Amino acid sequence: MTDNKKFDPNNPCLFCYPKPEEIMAETEYALLIVDSFPVSPGHCLVVPRRHIETYFDCTEEENREFHYLILQAKKQMDKLHSPDGYNIGCNNGLMAGQSVFHLHIHIIPRYKGDVENPKGGVRWVIPRNSQYQHSK
Amino acid sequence: MTDNKKFDPNNPCLFCYPKPEEIMAETEYALLIVDSFPVSPGHCLVVPRRHIETYFDCTEEENREFHYLILQAKKQMDKLHSPDGYNIGCNNGLMAGQSVFHLHIHIIPRYKGDVENPKGGVRWVIPRNSQYQHSK
Repeated sequence: MTDNKKFDPNNPCLFCYPKPEEIMAETEYALLIVDSFPVSPGHCLVVPRRHIETYFDCTEEENREFHYLILQAKKQMDKLHSPDGYNIGCNNGLMAGQSVFHLHIHIIPRYKGDVENPKGGVRWVIPRNSQYQHSK
Repeated sequence: MTDNKKFDPNNPCLFCYPKPEEIMAETEYALLIVDSFPVSPGHCLVVPRRHIETYFDCTEEENREFHYLILQAKKQMDKLHSPDGYNIGCNNGLMAGQSVFHLHIHIIPRYKGDVENPKGGVRWVIPRNSQYQHSK
């Protein structure tokens, strides 16, 4: 029985071999694909075609295309879901929460009321420090 | 008494007028500055000099310099704090947790044990959906 075999997203690498139906847009060096475990409607990912582990490994040219594809993601999602905001970000390293070791930049559409208190956004990677008071 | 007056980070804009001692690196169109409310040691921000609200408003040239400054941040932080990973990300819009409406990209160094379960990283913007199981 192989049904119970645990799926390993790194072998083969999930983002080296995306399914054609998951590809939303593509450029010479990068792809925009749907996230298979979306945290919100429209959650998608920008990934380089090249298997690199982190954002620190990307070239200027790849970075230019990431920007282009992030704008494409917004266009598509604004049309499909009309979200109220977007978080954009990536996890670099196991201790930063990365689990597929091929760089992927999350584009997470946000909707009014999707959490009780959205303040802090990506600061929530360390929940106890996510909140702060601007006071002097 | 003006002591109790609430500090408004948007008036004047906190990132249009960073303090000189907070600037870690700079380029023609962008700055690397320390975060005044760090969620971890070394937490810093890349901000465009131009007052734009979100990542979707930046030019190719600004985006190129963001990449350069993020690499500079890593170099400085690796040397100072030797973190075990990095989250990189930005909040676009009030409902995405943005509170200063001048684009700022967070670079958050991560350390083994800083949270019980780091898995998910920036997926924690919606905590209840941060976790997932890779199984097919």
